[in-house]
Amino acid sequence: MELSKIDNPSFLKQLTIEELNQLATEIRELLIESISKTGGHLASNLGVVELTIALHKVFNSPVDKLIFDVGHQAYVHKILTGRINKFAELRKYKGLSGFPKISESEHDVYETGHSSTSISAAIGFKFADCGGEVISIIGDGSLTSGVALEALTFAGDLKEKIIIIINDNNFSICKNVGGLSKVLNNLRVNKTYLGIKKGIPKDVKKIGKNIIRPIKYLINNPNYFEALGYKYYGVVDGHDFKDLLKYLEFAKKSTESVIIHVKTEKGKGYEPALLNSPKFHGVSSSDSDNFKTLKISYSEYISECVNNLKIDDLITITAAMSQGLRLEHLKKVIDVGIAESNAGIIAAGIAINKKPVYLPMYSTFSQRAYDSFLHDIAKMNLKVVIGLDRAGIVPGDGDTHQGIFDISMFYPMPNVKITMPKNSSEAKALVEYAFFKNDNPFVIRYPKSDIEIKEEVTVLNGEWIKETSGEINIISYGPDVNRIISICENNSISATIYNAIFIKPYCTKSLDQIIVSNKPLLIYEQVIEHGNLASAVGSYLLENGYSSKVKQMNLKTIPTFGDTVSLLTEHKLDDKSILEEIRKICD
Amino acid sequence: MELSKIDNPSFLKQLTIEELNQLATEIRELLIESISKTGGHLASNLGVVELTIALHKVFNSPVDKLIFDVGHQAYVHKILTGRINKFAELRKYKGLSGFPKISESEHDVYETGHSSTSISAAIGFKFADCGGEVISIIGDGSLTSGVALEALTFAGDLKEKIIIIINDNNFSICKNVGGLSKVLNNLRVNKTYLGIKKGIPKDVKKIGKNIIRPIKYLINNPNYFEALGYKYYGVVDGHDFKDLLKYLEFAKKSTESVIIHVKTEKGKGYEPALLNSPKFHGVSSSDSDNFKTLKISYSEYISECVNNLKIDDLITITAAMSQGLRLEHLKKVIDVGIAESNAGIIAAGIAINKKPVYLPMYSTFSQRAYDSFLHDIAKMNLKVVIGLDRAGIVPGDGDTHQGIFDISMFYPMPNVKITMPKNSSEAKALVEYAFFKNDNPFVIRYPKSDIEIKEEVTVLNGEWIKETSGEINIISYGPDVNRIISICENNSISATIYNAIFIKPYCTKSLDQIIVSNKPLLIYEQVIEHGNLASAVGSYLLENGYSSKVKQMNLKTIPTFGDTVSLLTEHKLDDKSILEEIRKICD
Repeated sequence: MELSKIDNPSFLKQLTIEELNQLATEIRELLIESISKTGGHLASNLGVVELTIALHKVFNSPVDKLIFDVGHQAYVHKILTGRINKFAELRKYKGLSGFPKISESEHDVYETGHSSTSISAAIGFKFADCGGEVISIIGDGSLTSGVALEALTFAGDLKEKIIIIINDNNFSICKNVGGLSKVLNNLRVNKTYLGIKKGIPKDVKKIGKNIIRPIKYLINNPNYFEALGYKYYGVVDGHDFKDLLKYLEFAKKSTESVIIHVKTEKGKGYEPALLNSPKFHGVSSSDSDNFKTLKISYSEYISECVNNLKIDDLITITAAMSQGLRLEHLKKVIDVGIAESNAGIIAAGIAINKKPVYLPMYSTFSQRAYDSFLHDIAKMNLKVVIGLDRAGIVPGDGDTHQGIFDISMFYPMPNVKITMPKNSSEAKALVEYAFFKNDNPFVIRYPKSDIEIKEEVTVLNGEWIKETSGEINIISYGPDVNRIISICENNSISATIYNAIFIKPYCTKSLDQIIVSNKPLLIYEQVIEHGNLASAVGSYLLENGYSSKVKQMNLKTIPTFGDTVSLLTEHKLDDKSILEEIRKICD
Repeated sequence: MELSKIDNPSFLKQLTIEELNQLATEIRELLIESISKTGGHLASNLGVVELTIALHKVFNSPVDKLIFDVGHQAYVHKILTGRINKFAELRKYKGLSGFPKISESEHDVYETGHSSTSISAAIGFKFADCGGEVISIIGDGSLTSGVALEALTFAGDLKEKIIIIINDNNFSICKNVGGLSKVLNNLRVNKTYLGIKKGIPKDVKKIGKNIIRPIKYLINNPNYFEALGYKYYGVVDGHDFKDLLKYLEFAKKSTESVIIHVKTEKGKGYEPALLNSPKFHGVSSSDSDNFKTLKISYSEYISECVNNLKIDDLITITAAMSQGLRLEHLKKVIDVGIAESNAGIIAAGIAINKKPVYLPMYSTFSQRAYDSFLHDIAKMNLKVVIGLDRAGIVPGDGDTHQGIFDISMFYPMPNVKITMPKNSSEAKALVEYAFFKNDNPFVIRYPKSDIEIKEEVTVLNGEWIKETSGEINIISYGPDVNRIISICENNSISATIYNAIFIKPYCTKSLDQIIVSNKPLLIYEQVIEHGNLASAVGSYLLENGYSSKVKQMNLKTIPTFGDTVSLLTEHKLDDKSILEEIRKICD
């Protein structure tokens, strides 16, 4: 059929299984073709082609609410709800979001991005009497996160009915990570049990308690999900429409909350052989969820620096981000699954025993561990070195993934030091400083970008670095310092540029120089407007009698998706805007 | 025996069960006697007298590490580790902390306060090769929290062995709250299953896989905890030393991670009849965990105000704090258990369906839901009215329970409004404003203190309230405004006092007046120094050319435990310090 003519999913009601299979093939081809050009989450979407089609065939979106956990696997949903013509602009500035967006379609009923929110949201929809069925589609990896587990344990015996589709691709979490992985594995292989479970329900009325209880009695003890109060059906073949439709119909007709455990194959239909095709140039590996060119990134370099310290007993704790954080360089890496709060407190438990521990995390995901950082690591002043990847404006993913809150999050926490390197020598020096010259919680934030490796040596003493001297004062940190140096050089601007490599504690020596200079000051940051370095510095300046002009450049709202330059420009943080602001305060 | 001579728990090794029972009785009497005078968490400690004694008899603290989850039930542990003579000073300034404190004793190996951290911490201890056994003692209520569930699901198949003691008093969570409650209830009543489980292990060697597997095979499907990979023993009578010692010995000798499910009676030995005794005057109810006089509190008044709006379809979501928040006045209250992140996203799911929702929480526990507030409520700009109880300095509990981070937490979040009333009419007006004149996430913070009900009417327009006019400027919010008005009146200080009832967004009209006035400014807040109102206001003042003196008064560190006046004085936020600072900036 002509995919570009799809306006809404109602056409699915008429299709035969053969036609559904044909549709799935066409969608799969389109995804591979399209995402090879735009980039995006290909594998996770290829895995849910049949599942998404089946959901839209059985349920009536938007009366029935489909809530895609994480949301990066909603491409097929977008295609079926009339957005195929925007796929060329996927994840591009002002184009099509890679995640559900309420502003895009009435079929996007809730916005997801961080994992594991969909069950809680579904419960809320039901409490609000939203009408229709509410379906959470959640991956096995997302089920390891605290908020999903809270919701799962809470909703089991609610009278409100929700439908939870476990999209189990056994992929998001590493093998053997966590007991829940074991639970799912046991269910995957327990054929006898599955046979009993799947054999019985031919009519949903028979799935009622009277029929199912004797089986439960035989089995004598409910499985993990049933122990929590759910009707559980699985394992359903996520690429078999007959199976999918049958169980989704059961779920629809059930009067109780239901879990449908669907087994899918991530990257289904995406043959590794295709990788050799020129048109897929740039794909780093078949495991990768994104098409991208393999270069040396900050992530990789920081990991190398940590490894180069050769701390024998160093333990690295990660919340399911070994790949994104490039932790393959490190020796002892413990992956706790998507469970940032747990990761934070485990690190605290290691540090309180005076053992070296490294806790790298994406800036945006660190938001999940706020209280672990504050209540455990910071309050007890434990030496945990925290790498914050993807700090600042992040291209592509959009508002749920911007790394712009970490400074306001960590700055108020007692004992915590916050830093950011502008280049490879500073990165190396900060890593050494964190582990060897520091006894506090220590944050090293770094951007999602490539890094040029230089052989320079930077020596740090906790103070800011005065990069240049001149007629106005500029404070920034990280690679933005390099941009500002260039802008000044290229435009013959005479400025004292302070590289605030130690964001916290701020450098009072430098600030006192600024106060004494009585010259205008520009503070540039790629973070949200409140609680940032400018706020902290501002308080010091005000209390100490600074009286010249000040301009703060930072973000007033959360940037959406797109390329970095477009986002910087929209938020007036691009080179041109910097130049304009410098000229303004010079007047 | 003479309890005051206890120096460390080694004496327990020699005691017979009869002597242990005698000791338990004496400790119980002492707790009732002592806490009736000092206040504190009586019931939870009475419930764990035998358990704590048994733990110290079987294990060798501090080589073996006892990590008490939440920590308010560690009084018996404190008695057994030589701190009985400090009990008269329990929770008093510079006295004995109501929670484990590393600085107090080598037997306090980790600091707890917020619930549900102990399993993660135990895992960390094991990863750090701390030596000895690591035992997490965690309540059934605490098990509903995300971080505990993350840790529980993660640690199940670790090779590192931890011991988890579930202190199940079926109390912290309301009946029928959540599927986990159902799991525990099923285990409590399933006598046959328990009989099998308890009957077998007479020698720990026989608990090995060979013996237990056939039973598992009979049962055919592991229970909830076994499904996650634990050896599970229960339900153990938490007041029977014979039972306790047997299973704790099993746990100690086991080579795998073990869960011991202990049933205890909260408040054991504390007869309701005692309540009528004059010396227990002030106890509000036998359910209460604290001895305190029943007065009208901010908590109660705010709940009344919300209820008085008579919003028929209003849903209130609470994370196991119905009692503390005084939610008995409200009609539809849904308790999700200790699960703040889930609570936040459920509220978001309700609000996105345009239904009214109220989400009251203690300020300190809101830290657990940071990302639910940011990623869900704030980012999607959902109208959730958030009541933040115990905001500011909180007496008694100490550093883990201070309400001093909420402003820095919420201020950077887009769309969120933050407010605080100084009296009853403002409280009433803010509640009305939040629900009827507002479409954003709306925080109303209020202190842990009593409130005097006045019949005044306050009308709000989003601006600050100019309380007085005079020669210097003072900004504050909440009941502190009343204190500052009094200080100025009593000391003939002529000040323009701005009541920043809308903490965010700040009132630029008032700030412009301050700038124009060119008079000194004092900003007073009971919150941490960074990311507060002073930070936000400071940025505005700096950018807009304010040039007079500024003094910010706020907290540089987290206050410890004690009475409010002592804590204010220590942190130079007491009345005398305010007066001194006013005089300084007047010079």
